[in-house]
Amino acid sequence: MFVLGIDPGLSRCGYSCLSGHGTATRAVAAGVITTPPHDPVPQRLAALQREIRALLGEFTPSVVAIERVLFQINVRTAMGVGQAAGVVMAEAVAAGCDVVEYSPNQVKQAVCGDGAAGKDQVTRMVQMLLGLSEPLRPADVSDAAAVALCHMAQSPIPAVAPR
Amino acid sequence: MFVLGIDPGLSRCGYSCLSGHGTATRAVAAGVITTPPHDPVPQRLAALQREIRALLGEFTPSVVAIERVLFQINVRTAMGVGQAAGVVMAEAVAAGCDVVEYSPNQVKQAVCGDGAAGKDQVTRMVQMLLGLSEPLRPADVSDAAAVALCHMAQSPIPAVAPR
Repeated sequence: MFVLGIDPGLSRCGYSCLSGHGTATRAVAAGVITTPPHDPVPQRLAALQREIRALLGEFTPSVVAIERVLFQINVRTAMGVGQAAGVVMAEAVAAGCDVVEYSPNQVKQAVCGDGAAGKDQVTRMVQMLLGLSEPLRPADVSDAAAVALCHMAQSPIPAVAPR
Repeated sequence: MFVLGIDPGLSRCGYSCLSGHGTATRAVAAGVITTPPHDPVPQRLAALQREIRALLGEFTPSVVAIERVLFQINVRTAMGVGQAAGVVMAEAVAAGCDVVEYSPNQVKQAVCGDGAAGKDQVTRMVQMLLGLSEPLRPADVSDAAAVALCHMAQSPIPAVAPR
């Protein structure tokens, strides 16, 4: 199962495509889609749309897990983040993916066991859960991987066959 | 020039396609795209995307004028409206349209001469400016036409040829 985790944003949209289950979970791809802050918003949204469509075409994830935008958090950037999330979700459904939203607290609870965990803690746990020698950087990428890991933690794990 | 006016929303997205200039401006099409409130948000955004793409394909507007979302206004629905606006703007740019955002105050100022005009006043002025025998209903449609009229009021009008 490929799960594409998304930390949505208009200036920076983190993504991370994971495969596998449990301790066998691995990152297949990860990165950040950026759009130029001085370009008009509609052009930036269209650029994000093209990049997301290309990612969905390349990795054909079965699920897109996306962090839910809480616009209480940062009033100045929340609308751009919401617009970006809207574009990603519409594209993902159009590509035939299941789309699931998780709140920041759900993600931290699933990855760190603590809904109030700090950013560094999330980065360290993502590194450990994916068996990486270095932490995923920048934070947008690590956060995107955390959302995908959160989804995997909610999903039924294939039973271990008796020997 | 076709201008597609959009009053964005996830439950109800008003649209109105206008053509012409000045007193010759006429509504070519108008309506509301609705999505079922009980469906998951990603599915609703994808449905809106399909409908908007169909409208852009049918009417091939040169400009899409969209009301800017001010999420100070209604915190509960603002995120859905922002996500819907994001989908519409990305689709419009992808279809080759210029996309212009106008604030509610700019729209009311352009259509009624008063940035603080009430909803009924906007509806009456839209009816008059488009030479309609009845007001455009529901309000989402009239508001979408008002955004398109606002854009037309900002655009250069072809000079009257000297006789």
